[in-house]
Amino acid sequence: MTYCVGMLIDDGIVFMSDTRTNAGYDNIAKARKIYNWSKSSDRQITLLSAGNLATTQKVITSISLDNEKDSIYSMKTMEEIADHIGDVLQKIIQKYSNSGQSSESTFSASFILGGQIKDEPMRLFQIYPEGNFIEASADSPFFQIGEIKYGRPIILRGYEPTLSFSEALKLLLVSFDSTLKANVTVGLPFDFQCYKKDSLNAGNISRIYETNEYYQKISNNWGDALKDALDRLPNFPCDNANKNKI
Amino acid sequence: MTYCVGMLIDDGIVFMSDTRTNAGYDNIAKARKIYNWSKSSDRQITLLSAGNLATTQKVITSISLDNEKDSIYSMKTMEEIADHIGDVLQKIIQKYSNSGQSSESTFSASFILGGQIKDEPMRLFQIYPEGNFIEASADSPFFQIGEIKYGRPIILRGYEPTLSFSEALKLLLVSFDSTLKANVTVGLPFDFQCYKKDSLNAGNISRIYETNEYYQKISNNWGDALKDALDRLPNFPCDNANKNKI
Repeated sequence: MTYCVGMLIDDGIVFMSDTRTNAGYDNIAKARKIYNWSKSSDRQITLLSAGNLATTQKVITSISLDNEKDSIYSMKTMEEIADHIGDVLQKIIQKYSNSGQSSESTFSASFILGGQIKDEPMRLFQIYPEGNFIEASADSPFFQIGEIKYGRPIILRGYEPTLSFSEALKLLLVSFDSTLKANVTVGLPFDFQCYKKDSLNAGNISRIYETNEYYQKISNNWGDALKDALDRLPNFPCDNANKNKI
Repeated sequence: MTYCVGMLIDDGIVFMSDTRTNAGYDNIAKARKIYNWSKSSDRQITLLSAGNLATTQKVITSISLDNEKDSIYSMKTMEEIADHIGDVLQKIIQKYSNSGQSSESTFSASFILGGQIKDEPMRLFQIYPEGNFIEASADSPFFQIGEIKYGRPIILRGYEPTLSFSEALKLLLVSFDSTLKANVTVGLPFDFQCYKKDSLNAGNISRIYETNEYYQKISNNWGDALKDALDRLPNFPCDNANKNKI
């Protein structure tokens, strides 16, 4: 499994991914799931991947090896790039599916694509295994792929477009920590990148290890903070419950 | 979809279920998913159901109509009752599956069974569609069925065996509210029941409607409380991030 989030904020885009990859419970490894293509002052493109690792790696190498004409370094819009990645993804899934499925897992995969090309606004897409895609907007400002459910409620409650990068990363770490506690196939370290709107310069991709002091603080304090928050809510008035007996 | 939780606490067992049932997005109705069989001073048995409504209702009517010999009113242990419900469930699923699947949804269903019989401790089980079951323990003191993921992190963080009924119901309402906000096929009103340990008397089954003041307060205040809790955590130290550049 995997957990990745791409999130639009007023200041830019924040990307985060875990690094665990598994083929069954007894076959666990670490793999990078965040990729960046950068041409300074011209374009910054980041991709997060979830799904079959053979498929996602093949997509990454394919789009990185493209000749100059079709390269993601030369395409004019982010949408063109999303289209291109979708096409490559669809072809790869079809190729290996046609050869017959002999393992338990499927060849499916999906991506979150975000970034900016000169003279275009920054944009964020989710690309489906079928090759089509949707774009983020003010109504739907973030995308999750992989094991999305455990970490979703806190993003739904905590997200604001006005979040700073520091606040957005904190929110994402809490969401990732909740997911980690519930699904053993999502694991540390976490990779993240912040893209600053209109900068057209790559934010570094950084890694948060299990030993990271800030992460440990968030993980421990969040449990306490939730309990405090629960404590401060009024308890259920059991005495009144019989009024609505069924 | 459905969301049901059965939770062991030191004081007894708390049951809660939503009431939405759907066959597709355009076929939504309300259905009760909590059932109680009571023989005062002798036994209290509560069942929560998730899955195909035709299957779960058939199971309920079948076990309610049993003749005296095989009745859940006469069986000697909770485990015998779990076994019996599992057998009935397995037979019903097989019967309709054998007739051929012609709708999109499957005939699958699962249950949470809890309660107490005189001279036995109180017990809580989760019954699978295959008819087998597992029992709750100190290590695994609650069961969820249906749409379990959105509401799980808060229970993992907030659960303590020492919770009072009032506190446990508050925790469950927060968990149900988080689920409701993320999945439209889980819906109000919620039904709940508290069984007091060793009482062998039925706690009433009560219903929480959308207009319930306490629920509205919890739902609104929980969003604010989460934001407060997030605000109190230190923001991510972006300046230090480059140390772990990859």
